[in-house]
Amino acid sequence: MAEVYDVLIVGGGPAGLTAGLYASRSRLKTLLVERGLFGGQITSADRVENFPGFPQGITGPELGERMHQQATLYGLETQVAEVTGVEIADDLKRVDSDHGSFRGRALVIASGSQHRKLGVPGEEELAGRGVSYCATCDAPFFQGREVAVVGGGDVALAEALYLARFASRVHIIHRRREFRASAILQEQVRALPRMDLHLEKVVTEVLGQEKVQGLRLKGVARGEEGQLAVAGVFVAIGLEPNTAFLGRWLPLTPTGHIVTNSLMETPVPGVLASGDVRQDSARQAITAAGDGATAALSALGYLRSQGR
Amino acid sequence: MAEVYDVLIVGGGPAGLTAGLYASRSRLKTLLVERGLFGGQITSADRVENFPGFPQGITGPELGERMHQQATLYGLETQVAEVTGVEIADDLKRVDSDHGSFRGRALVIASGSQHRKLGVPGEEELAGRGVSYCATCDAPFFQGREVAVVGGGDVALAEALYLARFASRVHIIHRRREFRASAILQEQVRALPRMDLHLEKVVTEVLGQEKVQGLRLKGVARGEEGQLAVAGVFVAIGLEPNTAFLGRWLPLTPTGHIVTNSLMETPVPGVLASGDVRQDSARQAITAAGDGATAALSALGYLRSQGR
Repeated sequence: MAEVYDVLIVGGGPAGLTAGLYASRSRLKTLLVERGLFGGQITSADRVENFPGFPQGITGPELGERMHQQATLYGLETQVAEVTGVEIADDLKRVDSDHGSFRGRALVIASGSQHRKLGVPGEEELAGRGVSYCATCDAPFFQGREVAVVGGGDVALAEALYLARFASRVHIIHRRREFRASAILQEQVRALPRMDLHLEKVVTEVLGQEKVQGLRLKGVARGEEGQLAVAGVFVAIGLEPNTAFLGRWLPLTPTGHIVTNSLMETPVPGVLASGDVRQDSARQAITAAGDGATAALSALGYLRSQGR
Repeated sequence: MAEVYDVLIVGGGPAGLTAGLYASRSRLKTLLVERGLFGGQITSADRVENFPGFPQGITGPELGERMHQQATLYGLETQVAEVTGVEIADDLKRVDSDHGSFRGRALVIASGSQHRKLGVPGEEELAGRGVSYCATCDAPFFQGREVAVVGGGDVALAEALYLARFASRVHIIHRRREFRASAILQEQVRALPRMDLHLEKVVTEVLGQEKVQGLRLKGVARGEEGQLAVAGVFVAIGLEPNTAFLGRWLPLTPTGHIVTNSLMETPVPGVLASGDVRQDSARQAITAAGDGATAALSALGYLRSQGR
């Protein structure tokens, strides 16, 4: 624990890696802590078509690896570890993990968020092969096919409307009798002929070998079973930002996201946040990367204001 | 003028092209108007090392072309024209140009900004070959070399401090006797041994064949001439956002930048701004691209709220 870094980064997705690239290129001694694969959520994408600069598309793991390689080229240090907590003194920040503690003068939180899972057989096995958590990312792959959306909130209905621009038919599966979504979204969904509503139904299994071929459904009230043939299922039952490790150090929104201004500054001096974990993120790899660059430059400004 | 687009985009740099990519992938009928080369400011960069995803670096023109190709692949229409004005009715926006007028329901302003030029011989000829307007972008190319910064404001001194992390010596050239920059930046600059201050001096010529080799200087008071051998010159005498064509339609900051919230929304419904032209932009290709994606998704939300 002797070493004090200029910048500590929690999370190695596009936000964290881009923060690492910018901080390292600025000659700041920087450590990035990631618990899993570099690239974060995009590593589960078979194909990324909407990251600008790659007209032919690129696989998620390759994009993640390229970002990782680029940042380490300029001196970024990385540590694979699960972050368990942070502690913030005036000018010193500490990150605790299952592989030890690290100290730094500025801290960038880029820990991302996780889509809530259905928790049914087939979901994990077919993730990226028809099971998706992001219509904006994956809808164009379902051109002319039938797809299902699971959920009843604003996000679920917005995803369904988005999918209707591509899919031949969109099935919305919701466990309650009424949607929680706002009235205008409900009206728009009900006005489209290509929408099928399956209310008071839950998904009990995602079916398919190699690719999604359908869903097994069950009625909530009477337990009747059925099947639905779809090529894709979009799970939109909620998003959980990875902020539990922050304890009470930072103010969070009711959904657990970190509040920042447009310079990615949190209310705590020297603590920045970027990517999916912050409020109002557009939750795209490219927006997260942009956030990360801004956060690193704000960290540089903070360190400079401290005379470093 | 018969056609009404879903989205009009002014500017074809990373912000505009990424907005175009996202809007087109969302099946919105989208037109992008650019007056020069696709890629915007990055087209003048010989080498871009800080756009994540390209560990070996990429030339600015190639990155711009790849972004352009990617967006048009999904249906983005483009028009090379100089935008001369806009007009905003409640739900219809019009962009006037020297190649006709275009109408759309949502409007993304991504017209960028321009660095104020010295206006001396050699500056234009050696741009990208030692003449730079962005230390964050280009400082690492001057590792161990002597460089000059022209200017006396906060940006100039921050650029000089940044360059001092790389260059063997940094010369600051300022036409007045005092810097306008904040006291803390002045203290930091004066505390560094590798800084040379050239006050009450102006640059009259950038010297060099193929690459910058030096500067010709002149004393403001007595007109004495001199030369300074440097490998690079960073011009930091101001930045002018390209917002003149907006007239009074949008509120601007005193520096002429567009005010947005973190969703890139301006106070005018259906009008978004992204990239260097907006307030608080970090002025990097990657942050502009992130802004563009956010703006396109906000445009989509706006159109949806209008029942489209």
